[in-house]
Amino acid sequence: MPDAERPGEFETIERLFRPLALEPYARGLLDDAAVLPARPGHDLILTKDTVVEGVHFLGDDPLDLVARKLLRVNLSDLAAKGAQPFGYLLSCAWSPRCGWSEREAFARGLAEDQRRFGVGLLGGDTVSTPGPLTLSATLIGYAPEGSAPSRAGARAGDLLVVSGTIGDGGLGLRAARSEEMGLSRAERDALAHRYRLPQPRLELAEAVRVFAHASADVSDGLVADAGRISAASGLRAVIDLDAMPLSAQARVWLYAQADPAGAAATLATAGDDYEILAALAPADLKPYCEACKAAGVPAALVGRLEAGEGVEARWRDQSVSLSRRGWTHG
Amino acid sequence: MPDAERPGEFETIERLFRPLALEPYARGLLDDAAVLPARPGHDLILTKDTVVEGVHFLGDDPLDLVARKLLRVNLSDLAAKGAQPFGYLLSCAWSPRCGWSEREAFARGLAEDQRRFGVGLLGGDTVSTPGPLTLSATLIGYAPEGSAPSRAGARAGDLLVVSGTIGDGGLGLRAARSEEMGLSRAERDALAHRYRLPQPRLELAEAVRVFAHASADVSDGLVADAGRISAASGLRAVIDLDAMPLSAQARVWLYAQADPAGAAATLATAGDDYEILAALAPADLKPYCEACKAAGVPAALVGRLEAGEGVEARWRDQSVSLSRRGWTHG
Repeated sequence: MPDAERPGEFETIERLFRPLALEPYARGLLDDAAVLPARPGHDLILTKDTVVEGVHFLGDDPLDLVARKLLRVNLSDLAAKGAQPFGYLLSCAWSPRCGWSEREAFARGLAEDQRRFGVGLLGGDTVSTPGPLTLSATLIGYAPEGSAPSRAGARAGDLLVVSGTIGDGGLGLRAARSEEMGLSRAERDALAHRYRLPQPRLELAEAVRVFAHASADVSDGLVADAGRISAASGLRAVIDLDAMPLSAQARVWLYAQADPAGAAATLATAGDDYEILAALAPADLKPYCEACKAAGVPAALVGRLEAGEGVEARWRDQSVSLSRRGWTHG
Repeated sequence: MPDAERPGEFETIERLFRPLALEPYARGLLDDAAVLPARPGHDLILTKDTVVEGVHFLGDDPLDLVARKLLRVNLSDLAAKGAQPFGYLLSCAWSPRCGWSEREAFARGLAEDQRRFGVGLLGGDTVSTPGPLTLSATLIGYAPEGSAPSRAGARAGDLLVVSGTIGDGGLGLRAARSEEMGLSRAERDALAHRYRLPQPRLELAEAVRVFAHASADVSDGLVADAGRISAASGLRAVIDLDAMPLSAQARVWLYAQADPAGAAATLATAGDDYEILAALAPADLKPYCEACKAAGVPAALVGRLEAGEGVEARWRDQSVSLSRRGWTHG
């Protein structure tokens, strides 16, 4: 676009980001840094994720949804640690296509999810890039001292419980890329929406703090994230693929596949679910699931941890090979 | 490069970043988030800056220096707030040219400045981008409760004192771009080095906390940053360009220009100095300068704040027009 129409960084901050600032901590976004008072009795929980156009979101994704997903993938990390979100710092490297209307849409998305999740903007910067739009957020939350479960605290005999449904993120990405997958338009739209706008499970933060020996958010797929908990805890994870909670759309897709076990493994190794995976003592299964239910979030028993190493996925008590499947995403 | 040679993100974290982790807070870089205990009696100071290849550093800048500059520009923000640095989160969006040797050089630079400045890696992420290398760091520090000066606290009659020398960053960028500028090779090398490796003035943090009514780091040029202090404080800044502290190289350059006043204004409006600009009560000038001297950093009186608005630059008691000059950089 012509330079005259290209928004300046100062104007971008002044017009679009100042109204989002969490005062007095953000100091009007005009200072060198944000300043936060200590919160005695609480740990500070910090997470940072970056998304790149064409890699983590699609070039035609609306920027208000991109903004909301950026916040939500980071909020999901806080939820997995049982934290209450507080605020965030944001870096925007705007690509040449990002004029005022694109930046306004982005700020509108931030404003909407700030209200929804009770967070505010603390600082950061905005720069230009000749490359793809690149966005990085650092989210800050608090948890009562010593209460944030790690991935390393699981014990042999623990049960693995996951919130919500698994696999919609992966199918949703394919739907957003206009793959048909033998699904109706309405089913594909629902899945694409789930991919573009995940639900961070902050309602479960307290239950996670109280009950989980270990926890993680499912961002790289149920198998990969269960594998990280088991590896960090020095254990072996067994996942029952036939017990995985599925959405109505994912169930339609799964049972149309020639090989349901392989299809279930595909769902279990896709990313972008942003559900909470918790390792629980068997005695805590019932109170944890009741706490989830009281918070309005379904929870399902999908596996267990035992002595050993690695991850085994099973379908109707048979092992399913995961060797050809991707375990991480870029 | 062929995919086989392209480092995976997990391997990058495991091989290069794990050795930099600040434990136990970083949780091995394997968890969803870093967890920091509260530090009662201290404020948390947070700053975040992003650099893009081709915009904030040159494509042929060695990546160990790019890493160190990324930390240093953020450390400079902490210094300006009187904070003691603690740790950082880092996001790397690697461009296709970033193979193992480039990433190793980058990690080597981080390791060197971690040791030098006493900080450690707390978290973040590493992703791939088809665009230019894009790096974002969130730096975290602490300052005793209520001690971090803002930009808004200056009072009419305050003096403006700057550390080190002004203008080397701007000349250094031109030197790094192989402009001759009528300088010797050794002079250009010294300036380019200053551009590539600024010195965050952390030694001045205590003096800033104790004496400054307001402070900022000089990242966008002395005039622009003095203007931000005066605007935030509801005052007018007057800068004496002929009192600006200059390096030997900048002095050689300045006095070779046909219009020394205009040349001084060029130095005062260039960025990348990363010095500390402090607003002080006149009675605090002497003790502040003595504290700077004790810390081994020169300090110079360059102006004052008075009732009014805007910034006036003067050269031998004559006003110098700044209207044609850039006040911000992208």
